[in-house]
Order: sequence, then structure tokens, then C-alpha cells
Amino acid sequence: MMTFRRKQVVKRLRTFIALAAVPLFLAACGNLSSSSMSSGSGSSKSGGTQLTGQTTDGDYEGVIKSGHYQTSKSRGVTNSQDSGNTYNLKSFENGMLSVSKKVFSTKKYVFQEGQYLNTSTVQNWLDRKSKSNPDGLNPTSNGSTSPTKRNPVYIQALEEQDYMTQKNSKLSLSGVTIGIAVNSVDYYKKTQYGATYETKISKAAGEAYAKKAANTVLQRLRKKSALKNVPIVIAVYRQASNDSLVGGTFMAYSNNKAGATSVKSWTPLGDKNYVFPTESGSSSPNSNDESSFTNFKTQVENFFPNLSGVTAQARYNGKNLQGMHVNITIQFYSQTEIISFTQYLQTAAQKYLPSGVPIDITVSSTDGVQSFLSRTSGSKKFTSHVFNSY
Amino acid sequence: MMTFRRKQVVKRLRTFIALAAVPLFLAACGNLSSSSMSSGSGSSKSGGTQLTGQTTDGDYEGVIKSGHYQTSKSRGVTNSQDSGNTYNLKSFENGMLSVSKKVFSTKKYVFQEGQYLNTSTVQNWLDRKSKSNPDGLNPTSNGSTSPTKRNPVYIQALEEQDYMTQKNSKLSLSGVTIGIAVNSVDYYKKTQYGATYETKISKAAGEAYAKKAANTVLQRLRKKSALKNVPIVIAVYRQASNDSLVGGTFMAYSNNKAGATSVKSWTPLGDKNYVFPTESGSSSPNSNDESSFTNFKTQVENFFPNLSGVTAQARYNGKNLQGMHVNITIQFYSQTEIISFTQYLQTAAQKYLPSGVPIDITVSSTDGVQSFLSRTSGSKKFTSHVFNSY
Repeated sequence: MMTFRRKQVVKRLRTFIALAAVPLFLAACGNLSSSSMSSGSGSSKSGGTQLTGQTTDGDYEGVIKSGHYQTSKSRGVTNSQDSGNTYNLKSFENGMLSVSKKVFSTKKYVFQEGQYLNTSTVQNWLDRKSKSNPDGLNPTSNGSTSPTKRNPVYIQALEEQDYMTQKNSKLSLSGVTIGIAVNSVDYYKKTQYGATYETKISKAAGEAYAKKAANTVLQRLRKKSALKNVPIVIAVYRQASNDSLVGGTFMAYSNNKAGATSVKSWTPLGDKNYVFPTESGSSSPNSNDESSFTNFKTQVENFFPNLSGVTAQARYNGKNLQGMHVNITIQFYSQTEIISFTQYLQTAAQKYLPSGVPIDITVSSTDGVQSFLSRTSGSKKFTSHVFNSY
Repeated sequence: MMTFRRKQVVKRLRTFIALAAVPLFLAACGNLSSSSMSSGSGSSKSGGTQLTGQTTDGDYEGVIKSGHYQTSKSRGVTNSQDSGNTYNLKSFENGMLSVSKKVFSTKKYVFQEGQYLNTSTVQNWLDRKSKSNPDGLNPTSNGSTSPTKRNPVYIQALEEQDYMTQKNSKLSLSGVTIGIAVNSVDYYKKTQYGATYETKISKAAGEAYAKKAANTVLQRLRKKSALKNVPIVIAVYRQASNDSLVGGTFMAYSNNKAGATSVKSWTPLGDKNYVFPTESGSSSPNSNDESSFTNFKTQVENFFPNLSGVTAQARYNGKNLQGMHVNITIQFYSQTEIISFTQYLQTAAQKYLPSGVPIDITVSSTDGVQSFLSRTSGSKKFTSHVFNSY
């Protein structure tokens, strides 16, 4: 897997000017509201910086420079790493945002895609350590191709997120979050186009490896002048296997104060993901939630002939449900059927699905998403939208 | 096209009992709110009727019988007719609902899929008139296969919608809407797997043919005892061609009072659909809207490298914009990029797109819908949703 990794060509539209070295002119100063776009937008002054606007208080705004979104310097690396299970992709980046919110308030900080680790650096770090690649964070190959004897590739993805604050019309770097993703299964090939083999990595082994690597990463980042004196959060994530219907979860994070060059302590993160209905033999942390889901599923499947499937991703912290993503796959339905079905789902979801947690429901056919419903943790009613066209 | 039309097998789960002949017990009486599902749901008493619940005041509730949605007796016919342009499908059924709302208030009436015209009836009516099919509403073949000399197939789809009211815990039929869709282009083949040829049908010719057929349909419906004494709305629709990026529109409708056996008058409907950006050489009714869209498109395309496309379906009545569906196609973006992009769209849409009309924006990649935004006609701000998974 590592040896034959697709080296995705990452197109970069323009040369980046190191952010810290350039004075930035904010469109709106001292106010991180969505109105910050009101001036500057539409003009293309070089160096003009805007923010994306905020959809809810719980989201970070992002940085726009000269009308372009400030994309990551290592754009695309994570995507090519994680192609085996696309749930990992969303889960990893969303999780990094969630961890960051524990440290960097969305009211004070602005999100910027990572600007300090570029594509080649991240790729070298993710490769095995070798004579030609002394910076590799993954272990040197021991020559074995046996699933249980070889040194597996532990670290599958590494990503940087920057958190900015504004002072005197300038955006300056005030924090960094690094996500380190370790494999639960390392997929590898013995020959270039040969069969795929698997080396399993226990949670404990993966977590220990990631935490050791985190120390190395922290020391390397401190050598960059811009990163010497900012808090650096490092969060370690365990990838779900390629056959999983849900992504992985974060195991722990450390908040390293400005200047700190070694990780002092880790805060454990207990979120776990489950798929409903659970496979026979496995169980979820709270049987009430699962029977709620089963009741909902039965009602919904009864509604239409030939409904293809009702499944859900459920996230738990201990025995406490944190939220659900419900996916309903339908055959081709007429528009009036989809409207009626969505109305029915709105009532049935409110009646049967667990209350007090955020839930969304996506209804898809082979033609794509047909409708969707969602409810925030505080609400009782689901809002809905039926996709439409003229 | 007609001759080799796919005869889609329509699965029917159970035999329908003619609605009017059976006393119906409504779960909630005299109250068309979504609470009508509170009892009855979960039980499977035979004959138990519920309603789907209402998402907004502007939507009809639908009819559920014994836990199953009351599907159309001619389910699937329209879908197989319209497979050439899927926009026609949504547009035709949505348009029938819109026309119905002019006559049957959503506060008083409940929607039911058509129960009086079954699949074989509708298929016979849609076929050409012939010795073996005397009920065909399309003209007898004149033997010619020349695009300009042959008798084209005018009527491409015909659909029934039922409108019910409840009195004394009973739902009874109180109105019917029939949609008749005529081709703007009749696609046909000279030999079974041969090339596809086209006969163009002018708006005037199609409309005249549909209105004549409407009279025939009305007379036939009046022969069914259940339909003798209810208002029957007939609406005539012009299909968009298969290469259109937008569906067709309704040309006119007639509201035929209970018992009336011939159409007395037609009310013209002036809605027209456009695609933005308009093709070179064509124009839209209001250049201000189009330049608003162009400004929005320019801003949005500037935001990211490699954005694939920004298009919109716009609906007009005369020179007045009625609403827009904006479609944005993106490359593969990371989750943080999609979040930032959606935030940016929210601000840019509010700033650049025409105000005072309902607009929704769908952001899709090859992986499907990534996020979407919408605004009702009365609102200023767009709400947004980023599709997510654990």
C-alpha cells in the first residue's frame, strides 16, 4: 500500500506567500460576523483578505485571500491516503474541527487550511523511514511480507489546521491543530498489482505509536519560526477498516502550550461509532436506542413497496448517544411519492427516533439525493427539504 | 418510440378496494395536522387510514392505508413515458400539484395518488388509436416514417391525482386533477433498434391537441360513478425536449364543475423555464436577473481552483422571476473545504442572487450532493446544510 501509494498530483493555482510575513487587510475588522464579506468581495485587490461568513455560531469562518479560498499547502494528500474508506475522510476532518473547538473558540478564532506543512513534507512524513527518507514517521521495513511479522504502516494520514485571530486589522496565527490518523488495518500488496493483504493493528498499539510520533511532530513544528510560540493541539485518530460503513474516531488529544516541545499529557476521547441495524452477534451501547431505530425502520419499510434499505450511523460517548445519520435508499419514486414519504418520515422520525440528539435523514435513489430531514439536538421537530427542479 | 415503448412492470403489493365503497376510519378526525398520525400508526388494523403529516401549510398531506402509502393505480406509467428527460418527471408532477392548489386548498384537501385510472387504462389511452386500441388518444398512424409527414405521438403522459376531504371520520373524494403532457418533440424509431428520429410539434399544435383530448378524457371520467359528481381539473403540459436542462411547463388548465361533461373554458398559465447562463443567441425575460446570476457565478468560480460548473434553472411568469434552482458541480473537495465553500455561498447568494423569490443551491461532486442552501421567498437569509457522516 505504502510503496504503491498513488502520488496524487496536487494542483496549486498560485504561489503562497507565507501568511505571517505579509500584512493582511481585513475586509471587516474586529468583527467575525458574516458581514465581514460586505466589503472587499467583488474587488480583487492583491492581498485583500476576507472571511467566508459564518452559517452558525458553532462553525468557524474560513479565510479568503484575493477572492480565492486559502487552500491547504498539502491539499489532496489526505484524500489520496484515505481512498479506501471515504467515511474516514469526512470523519477525520470533522473530528479535527470538533477537537479544535474544545481549545479554540469559534467566537474568537478563524479557521484556515494548513499553511505550514506542504505536500512533499507530509508525504515524506507519511512514508517509511529509510536512508532516502530520514523524516519518515512510519517504521523502516523489516523485509518481511508476512501479515503478522512485517512492520506495518501505522500512520495513514496527517493533517494541519490553522487557527487565526485578528488584531488591528491583521489576521495572525494563534493556534495549530495536527491530526494524526493511524490504521486499524494496514492494507498492503506484495507485488505491484497483486492481491491485497492485511496487517491488523490493535487500538493500543496504534495509539501508542501515534502518541510517540506526536512528540516527534511537535518538535519538528517548533523548528519553524512561525510555529515556535503558538499552542499546538495534536489529536490522534484511529481509521476505520475499508469495509466499515462508518468512519473512525479520535482516541485522544493533547493541548501543547506555546513553546512546549514535548507532549506533557493526553486527554482521552471516548466517542465510538456504530452502524444500525447492528450485525448479528454485535451490540450497541444502549439497547433502547437500537430498538427505537428498529421501530422506525419497520414503520418506514412498511410505508412503500420495495424500499431498499434503512441504515444509520450512530455515535456514542460511553452509553450516551451523541447523534445519528440515517440513510434511506429508495427505488425510483415519483415526485408526489417522495413528497409524501418525506412528510411521513418527518412524523415517524419525531415519534420513533431517540430525542435530544442531532439527527439527519438522507433519502437517496440511484438518481441521487431526493430529500433530507434534520433536527438539531435542542429541537423537537425535524425540518425537511425535497430536492426539486423546474 | 410508441411502438417500442418499454412496458414497465408495475408491481402492486395488494389489491385495492375502491375507496368510495369502503367506510374509512380516520386516525384523527376533523384535523388535518400532522398529529393525525398519533394514533393508528404502529398498529396494522385493516382499513385503518392515516395521513402522512404536513411539512408546511403549503403542502398537501397524503393518504396512508393500513400503514402503507396509497400508491397510484397507474404507478410507474409516467416514469416510463418520460425517461428521456428526468426534469419533465418532477416538473410535471410538481406542476400538477401547483395547479391543484389554485382550486383545492391545502388547508381543506388531502392528496391521494390517483385511484381511478389503472395502468392498462392509461397505457391504452397513451397509445395510438387503432382497431385493437379504440381508446387511444394519440392519432392513428398514417404509415409515413417521414419526420414531417407522419402523424406524431402528441400525448406522452397522463396522470391522475385525487383530492379528498374528511367528514364524520371519513375521507371522501372531492376533486380530481388530470395532467396531460404533450410532446414538443416526438422521438421515434423506424426499426426496433434503429436510429432515433424527431418530429417537432409546435406549442400551438400541441396545446390544441391536448385540449381536444381533455374533452374526451372528461367525458370518459364522468362515466365512472365515483367521478360523476366531483370537480375535475384538467391541466395541459408541454414536455421539454430530451436535451433540455430544464423540464417543461403547464400551458393552461380548466376547472370543470361537478357533473360538467365538456370543458367550458381554459385559464392560460404563463410560466416559462430558462437555463442560466443562457446560450449565446438566446435571452431571458429579465436581463437584471441574468447579470445577478453572472456576478454570483463569477464570484463563486473564483473561490476555488477547478470548480466545474455553476448553472441555474430559472422560472418566469412573464418578466417576473418566480424562483431559481442553482446547481454547482465541484471536484473532490475535503470536508473543511466544503464547509467553507458553503459558508461563502451563503453570503455570496444573499449578496448577488435576485431577492424576493425562493432559491435553492445544490452543491454536488461525483460522490453525490455535498451541501445545499435554500431561501423561501419571504426570507432574506439562506439556510444551509452540509452533508455529513461519522
